[in-house]
Amino acid sequence: MTDTVTIAVDVMGGDRGPAVILGGAGAALSRRNGIRYMLFGNAAVIEPILRGMPELAAASSVHHCEVAVAMTEKPSQALRHGRWRSSMWRAIEAVKKGDADLTVSAGNTGALMAMARFCLRTLADIERPAIAAQWPTLRGMSIVLDVGASIGADARQLIDFAVMGGAMARALFNIPRPTVGLLNIGVEEVKGLEEVRTAGRILKETPMHNLAYGGFVEGDDLGRGTVDVVVTEGFTGNIALKTAEGTARQISAYLREEMSRTFFARLGYHLAKDAFDSLREKLDPRKSNGGVFLGLNGIVVKSHGDSDEFGFASAVENGFDMVRNGLQQKISSDLTEYHGAEFHPEFREGATGTGGL
Amino acid sequence: MTDTVTIAVDVMGGDRGPAVILGGAGAALSRRNGIRYMLFGNAAVIEPILRGMPELAAASSVHHCEVAVAMTEKPSQALRHGRWRSSMWRAIEAVKKGDADLTVSAGNTGALMAMARFCLRTLADIERPAIAAQWPTLRGMSIVLDVGASIGADARQLIDFAVMGGAMARALFNIPRPTVGLLNIGVEEVKGLEEVRTAGRILKETPMHNLAYGGFVEGDDLGRGTVDVVVTEGFTGNIALKTAEGTARQISAYLREEMSRTFFARLGYHLAKDAFDSLREKLDPRKSNGGVFLGLNGIVVKSHGDSDEFGFASAVENGFDMVRNGLQQKISSDLTEYHGAEFHPEFREGATGTGGL
Repeated sequence: MTDTVTIAVDVMGGDRGPAVILGGAGAALSRRNGIRYMLFGNAAVIEPILRGMPELAAASSVHHCEVAVAMTEKPSQALRHGRWRSSMWRAIEAVKKGDADLTVSAGNTGALMAMARFCLRTLADIERPAIAAQWPTLRGMSIVLDVGASIGADARQLIDFAVMGGAMARALFNIPRPTVGLLNIGVEEVKGLEEVRTAGRILKETPMHNLAYGGFVEGDDLGRGTVDVVVTEGFTGNIALKTAEGTARQISAYLREEMSRTFFARLGYHLAKDAFDSLREKLDPRKSNGGVFLGLNGIVVKSHGDSDEFGFASAVENGFDMVRNGLQQKISSDLTEYHGAEFHPEFREGATGTGGL
Repeated sequence: MTDTVTIAVDVMGGDRGPAVILGGAGAALSRRNGIRYMLFGNAAVIEPILRGMPELAAASSVHHCEVAVAMTEKPSQALRHGRWRSSMWRAIEAVKKGDADLTVSAGNTGALMAMARFCLRTLADIERPAIAAQWPTLRGMSIVLDVGASIGADARQLIDFAVMGGAMARALFNIPRPTVGLLNIGVEEVKGLEEVRTAGRILKETPMHNLAYGGFVEGDDLGRGTVDVVVTEGFTGNIALKTAEGTARQISAYLREEMSRTFFARLGYHLAKDAFDSLREKLDPRKSNGGVFLGLNGIVVKSHGDSDEFGFASAVENGFDMVRNGLQQKISSDLTEYHGAEFHPEFREGATGTGGL
């Protein structure tokens, strides 16, 4: 890794159009030193916008692509029609070729994952990639995975998620030995899914100097920040993530309503405005924007489809930090270590079944 | 059903002890007309408390039980040791014998479910009971099930949950034709679990005059109140419920912190106190306390283990309302109708597989 981090941006992805994507890229440029952009998309759209953004233009190369993957396209369609020529594919391919250090896209998640798997391939020891989200907690920030790359996971895959999530926590939060918990219902060891229980037993019995197994955690431990990394399969993880986002929006709506109802409430709101602003900032989902695809030969960051410039900039910055902090190397070395002879034999032999959730 | 609703209370269940349970029972008495209590527990503990609560004493009969099921007991242990003699078992048995209309317990959930299944048995057409929770939304209140009775559900079980949840919405919210959604990830029909997709297809194709199928919903639809009834299997439902509770607590903690940080914030808080109180009331999890076991030959309401008097009273009142509004009859008649010949043949034949989640 050089001092420069080269970021391949799928300019055509997202609900809000190329101007927002480029605006976000420009904003990130001013907050991180050493970003170079490779901008993939329709040059006739990108170049006029860049003329108004000289700093971004100076840090970027434009790579014209004829095809833009639609937000509504099915992954299989996108792979058939968009491959080779779409901005999404070519942004991923830039990482594969070694031209870029990471890809950022606000496009269609399913298509992005399908293309990323197809183009970059999974790491040697990984059966399935995962999408990892950053989750704001009362103690700071946690990592939760998988939040929707695939449905169901067997014990081995859950353990892979634990190892990859741990590496991400070390890369992003600078924690030498992150704690990891398995999402479950009830904290008694007798409860829960067979695969989750098996994964828990293996994690408990395996000495890992980079990761501290913290046992089972429940849904309310997510906001509490009980552990640094929460591992679950993609269906439950996605539901949990969206439930938390929905609950935050619901409470914000209640708060807005209550604070505008009476004169005293409005006056109180005005006086406490700094406090409300600070609360809003804490709850701002844009700051932790960017699901990271883990387990591939390259880093792909998925920005929320409807994110604004600030949100897209956060996704870029998160990706930048992960590259700078050697996320891929950390994942590879951990996987090599824990898939090695030290690891519990059951894990190697896949004796835990393949049932999934 | 007579005008009186007889409620069998497991006085020994819960983290806070019999005085809180009896306090809650007393509070509910003043808010609903026609409650009779059968109090199951240690008479030497109950009677001294009742002496200080003459109204509750007048509305209650005390049934001495030697055994109290511990909060930490495994369901199998509780069934072995507590059957016949425990306050939990005997409170459930009172419903089976027809002496009481419903059971309310704040005790060990696993033991309560095991005993309720064993004693009351599932309804003729039901393979598995579910625990239904009331979920406060921006539009009012929804019902979510299963929030943890069992792990995994096949298409047929998911449809049973839809029918039972619909009956509960009619009984509690007085909605003639509740909308029901299946919790899934992504709203595209191509996504998601096989069983969820099959259930969705069958619900869509089946004419049901008591229930309107609203398609797939995602985690953030829970707080939005997109549908009246949200159906999922128990693992995901439990995680979603606890994630929402945890997020609400997290935001409340942020808010408290911010509102005490500066002089102006504290002043603003003081001025807007009514608004904050109203917000607190909206977020109060005690109001929707009480998971209902659906699908058994009798109503069992599970109060949160650490609920206070107000919370336990809410559980009692919710149970009372369900009995008054004929929940069991509604469930039975709906199941008879939808398990009848009109229903999609696949559903009857169980051709959707038994894989579960």
